[in-house]
Amino acid sequence: MLHEDRLFPSDPTQRAIARRLYAEVRDLPIVSPHGHTDPSWFARNEAFPDPATLFVVPDHYIFRMLYSQGVTLESLGIGRRDGAAVETDPRTIWRRFAAHWPLFRGTPTKMWLEHSLETLFGITDRLSPDTADAIYDRIDASLRTPEFRPRALFERFKIEVIATTESPTDTLEHHRAIRESGWTGRVVTAYRPDPVVDPEFEGFAANVARLGELTGEDTGTWAGYLAAHARRRAFFKDHGATSTDHGHAAATTADLPEAECRRLFDGALKGTLSAAEADQFRGQMLTEMARMSLEDGLVMQIHPGSFRNHNAALFAGFGRDKGADIPMRTDYVRALKPMLDRFGNERDLTIILFTLDETVYSRELAPLAGHYPALRLGPAWWFFDAPEGMRRYRELVTETAGFYNTVGFNDDTRAFCSIPARHDVARRVDCAFLARLVAEHRLDEDEARETAIDLTYRLVKAAYKL
Amino acid sequence: MLHEDRLFPSDPTQRAIARRLYAEVRDLPIVSPHGHTDPSWFARNEAFPDPATLFVVPDHYIFRMLYSQGVTLESLGIGRRDGAAVETDPRTIWRRFAAHWPLFRGTPTKMWLEHSLETLFGITDRLSPDTADAIYDRIDASLRTPEFRPRALFERFKIEVIATTESPTDTLEHHRAIRESGWTGRVVTAYRPDPVVDPEFEGFAANVARLGELTGEDTGTWAGYLAAHARRRAFFKDHGATSTDHGHAAATTADLPEAECRRLFDGALKGTLSAAEADQFRGQMLTEMARMSLEDGLVMQIHPGSFRNHNAALFAGFGRDKGADIPMRTDYVRALKPMLDRFGNERDLTIILFTLDETVYSRELAPLAGHYPALRLGPAWWFFDAPEGMRRYRELVTETAGFYNTVGFNDDTRAFCSIPARHDVARRVDCAFLARLVAEHRLDEDEARETAIDLTYRLVKAAYKL
Amino acid sequence: MLHEDRLFPSDPTQRAIARRLYAEVRDLPIVSPHGHTDPSWFARNEAFPDPATLFVVPDHYIFRMLYSQGVTLESLGIGRRDGAAVETDPRTIWRRFAAHWPLFRGTPTKMWLEHSLETLFGITDRLSPDTADAIYDRIDASLRTPEFRPRALFERFKIEVIATTESPTDTLEHHRAIRESGWTGRVVTAYRPDPVVDPEFEGFAANVARLGELTGEDTGTWAGYLAAHARRRAFFKDHGATSTDHGHAAATTADLPEAECRRLFDGALKGTLSAAEADQFRGQMLTEMARMSLEDGLVMQIHPGSFRNHNAALFAGFGRDKGADIPMRTDYVRALKPMLDRFGNERDLTIILFTLDETVYSRELAPLAGHYPALRLGPAWWFFDAPEGMRRYRELVTETAGFYNTVGFNDDTRAFCSIPARHDVARRVDCAFLARLVAEHRLDEDEARETAIDLTYRLVKAAYKL
Repeated sequence: MLHEDRLFPSDPTQRAIARRLYAEVRDLPIVSPHGHTDPSWFARNEAFPDPATLFVVPDHYIFRMLYSQGVTLESLGIGRRDGAAVETDPRTIWRRFAAHWPLFRGTPTKMWLEHSLETLFGITDRLSPDTADAIYDRIDASLRTPEFRPRALFERFKIEVIATTESPTDTLEHHRAIRESGWTGRVVTAYRPDPVVDPEFEGFAANVARLGELTGEDTGTWAGYLAAHARRRAFFKDHGATSTDHGHAAATTADLPEAECRRLFDGALKGTLSAAEADQFRGQMLTEMARMSLEDGLVMQIHPGSFRNHNAALFAGFGRDKGADIPMRTDYVRALKPMLDRFGNERDLTIILFTLDETVYSRELAPLAGHYPALRLGPAWWFFDAPEGMRRYRELVTETAGFYNTVGFNDDTRAFCSIPARHDVARRVDCAFLARLVAEHRLDEDEARETAIDLTYRLVKAAYKL
Repeated sequence: MLHEDRLFPSDPTQRAIARRLYAEVRDLPIVSPHGHTDPSWFARNEAFPDPATLFVVPDHYIFRMLYSQGVTLESLGIGRRDGAAVETDPRTIWRRFAAHWPLFRGTPTKMWLEHSLETLFGITDRLSPDTADAIYDRIDASLRTPEFRPRALFERFKIEVIATTESPTDTLEHHRAIRESGWTGRVVTAYRPDPVVDPEFEGFAANVARLGELTGEDTGTWAGYLAAHARRRAFFKDHGATSTDHGHAAATTADLPEAECRRLFDGALKGTLSAAEADQFRGQMLTEMARMSLEDGLVMQIHPGSFRNHNAALFAGFGRDKGADIPMRTDYVRALKPMLDRFGNERDLTIILFTLDETVYSRELAPLAGHYPALRLGPAWWFFDAPEGMRRYRELVTETAGFYNTVGFNDDTRAFCSIPARHDVARRVDCAFLARLVAEHRLDEDEARETAIDLTYRLVKAAYKL
Repeated sequence: MLHEDRLFPSDPTQRAIARRLYAEVRDLPIVSPHGHTDPSWFARNEAFPDPATLFVVPDHYIFRMLYSQGVTLESLGIGRRDGAAVETDPRTIWRRFAAHWPLFRGTPTKMWLEHSLETLFGITDRLSPDTADAIYDRIDASLRTPEFRPRALFERFKIEVIATTESPTDTLEHHRAIRESGWTGRVVTAYRPDPVVDPEFEGFAANVARLGELTGEDTGTWAGYLAAHARRRAFFKDHGATSTDHGHAAATTADLPEAECRRLFDGALKGTLSAAEADQFRGQMLTEMARMSLEDGLVMQIHPGSFRNHNAALFAGFGRDKGADIPMRTDYVRALKPMLDRFGNERDLTIILFTLDETVYSRELAPLAGHYPALRLGPAWWFFDAPEGMRRYRELVTETAGFYNTVGFNDDTRAFCSIPARHDVARRVDCAFLARLVAEHRLDEDEARETAIDLTYRLVKAAYKL
């Protein structure tokens, strides 16, 4: 089912070059600097329960598509907040998924799943109502074997290191358990402070109080709050973290006088900030985080531009991360200026920018990253983490920022089995892009070969200090 | 002149696949769910008068290009509002058009016209000052024959059904005449309420009064106005309508308290609304129309983003639709939320979104349509209804929304003879896109074949309930 | 090193067509209607001092990339405003550049430099630490010969005419010296009034006073200020100028009552305008410039959308044009309306629009230029003046505006040796685009051949009246 030339150009000249480039990178280890796998998988190393729970229920790429065509989330086993009954039979869920498989034509989900089915489970039949049960049975049987436990898969996937993402109020107990277990797989955390940085996050004040308890700092004051962050960052660093991650609605940054910071912080705790003030507070915190990064060396990732929980009824019924986050137009040029005025010229700071607004690649992000020493460009992200999106990313970014202001791929996923597929897609698309440059005599093949290895392996290790 | 492989990739692998896919769809009937042909053509079935009146005078794609290069509208026979003299000799108009033919290189107009000339009139010479007269004569002679009457062309084009677009104040007499004539061609109307929904439309209050007369409702009140819409929609539905169409400047929707609706409606009738209030009123009416669509089953089309009549002098001299409508940046994520909060999760409602702002395909529309059950994505529209625009549409939309949240092609034209050409271009471009997916092993050919037929025929029939 | 097929598609069908088209245009003379070469080069005809001063120090494409990766501007010999010491040894600068050469993979800088090295200096080794010295020596030796003096290079490059860009307060002494020297090379100026039109430009009031001195007009009054412009434009026209150039932050235009113009002008001189008022004043001046262009025939170029000097610390240390200008989202549809309402329908006026915001090509600029007689579209500019950017430009613009509302290429450069390379890239990319249209049977080859010559030579001469 998987063709060895998939994602390569069909033009014979380009295809031959792409094959040679890909041969150099296909077997390199996976470095996964940003993602959402669950560290308890690796701490406990328990079997994944069943095919539906592994592939369908946690993957918003899958259930958003099914939902868009009238399939209810309840019928896919997605739990409701009110505890009302939802489908619990994994085979029924799997059959529903299989019945709608043609919806995924042309999407990366199709490639990821087919790659997983074939390479992990040896399945080469196409998913359909006719094959759904046999495929289910085959996966289900495999999952009961030791070879399909999380740690075994981790090793089989040749993951050199993987980063998870945790809130500052997380205890990191699973990371500690992994470390203490003697298992040599490298699973690190990343500091994702949105719940204690975004005044509009559910339970912000309680989260900040909890941060105080965990750090012994008085997070009722601005100074204590900042000190708590510094302390908690050190704790995360001690659990392997090399980076922080910031998922704000906008890329706003601010550099306000301290009195104004105190005022905003007080308002944030009291819940009295206007939307504009909350935006300013988040923006100030990005600048504070940059300052701390310059001190403790954590790499900073900024992921703005998502209108979270756009579907009000769905959010009320099912909560966050249910496929209803929608990208928004995002400005970077004005938004980042306060932070860049403070720290943009720092050569020892790394700030990695992501976007959900492709129009900024060539207009804003490549020009910014192609100038400021502190800035790097993250890969095509989320909805754009797919062959056409990745190709556009290289076409739009490279002429201004080159390859070396980018940082390699990250899979950003909670779908564990899709990790090798996602990295393979990225490697193939990058090789295809480089092959075109070589075929059009814009790059020599030895340059492309070195670049392919850089994009796959060296840049990500260097950028994330992994 | 027309090459059988036109618009297919020149790469032999892709070309061969594209040919095979196209063979499956080239002869499928035309389903034209949205357009601006004149129903009186089919009601009266009179001969088209001459080549210039058929091809040049009504086609703003043509005369806007000529105008941009210094050709006056008067010299092309476009009537002035003040009744001042304009060119009346069709042959002179045709010669002017022919003399500027190289301007259309690289534009869809060139493809559409060449397709019409060859397939309808057997003309394979290139249009030029040297050939203008002979081509004119050949077309002119053909138009005098029965085979070139509107109904004969309709049948020759293999149109299964075509939708026209009418204002609620239209009597639909031509549609009634067609139905009563015994002719079996299916020509349906669509409900386009802009003149009675947009407070900034010329003659809004008079239009609303006329709507009251036609429906017997008191359109001086908000309740009566809504009742008049419901009644008129039923009248349109009785004349074949399966859809409504809304051409607002922005995608704004609103869901206001009834008192505020009444206040805005009163201001709209009095002409006292600010621009922002007019926008709110139009936005409220989109939500009202969605509500009525849920009741009467009419499919809703939203076509926002055009700055109408941008050229003030031209509008004063010649009126609407003279090639001076310019696309604008358009937001959907925030704009649609009020309506989606009410009706976005309705599985029995279909709202088809169009755009003139390509940046929203991947950033906003595909993510929205790939999630909300009520939403579907219309095809590349107007300025983008051309090979490069259509290709970008598939590249930008498919990875997030798939193929099945799109609704097939619509020609949206008043240039009757261009309809087969336009559908042929769409079919070829879709086959070329699918061929690339197959050649790059992202889709199997049997999947592509089924998808090609869906994109050409099945999706449009299902989405528009035709 | 330079392959004869570089930048052509690798598909054999397209490549063969591209070769044939390129053969028609490769040897056409260079018409360079907009750029930033220094007229004193041609007036004095002195040898360029050394390789670093020729290639590295003046080229912000080069040093912005090096700076983004941690190389200081001081170490590249860029002078500081405070006069503090910077690197002065050109060989050391050259070695630094060579050591970072891989950063430029995939960028146009790589193509431009390699083209210059091979065609001018016969160098076919790749730049690297190992080859840096030998390449330096070879260039350095050449620069000492008469064949590498500016006028000799001008002739060798087959430049038919080149435009420089000067402020109204420039004396144009070098242009006068060139004319009086008897040398036949055609070097013309262009009127770039930003320093006396933009109230936020450094030294605005002093610049306006200087304009008064140079023209004998009382530039303390609005009427005198306008008269001074008219007089100075005539002076520039007398020194060969056929165009004006306007580099505003936004595309804002205005058409204000005279009293308001006077009020804004007074505030501009006093430095009391708000940012919004300064924007209005610049916008009014675009309309005034259009009015004057209609009178004196100078072609008007509008280059909006750059956030100048984004990096505050860098600007403080090194001044303007140091690679820290960042593109911004730019609106044209509403912004240009006041000027277009006045002059958009003038057939004797030419306004050439540029952009740094690619999203407007298909959404705004092509529809505007494809309608208004006064408008034409400039080529892909600045960050987009590279193969992928140029290809996107044609793909996004052509279907709506055609080829004949565009104006050919301009190199816009101060890097003299890169001029042939840049024009060659543009010719190759246009031929590649046309070859695809021919290979896909959208254009006949004879049409493409004529179009290629138009895009290379005829359109630029006609549009700029050169």
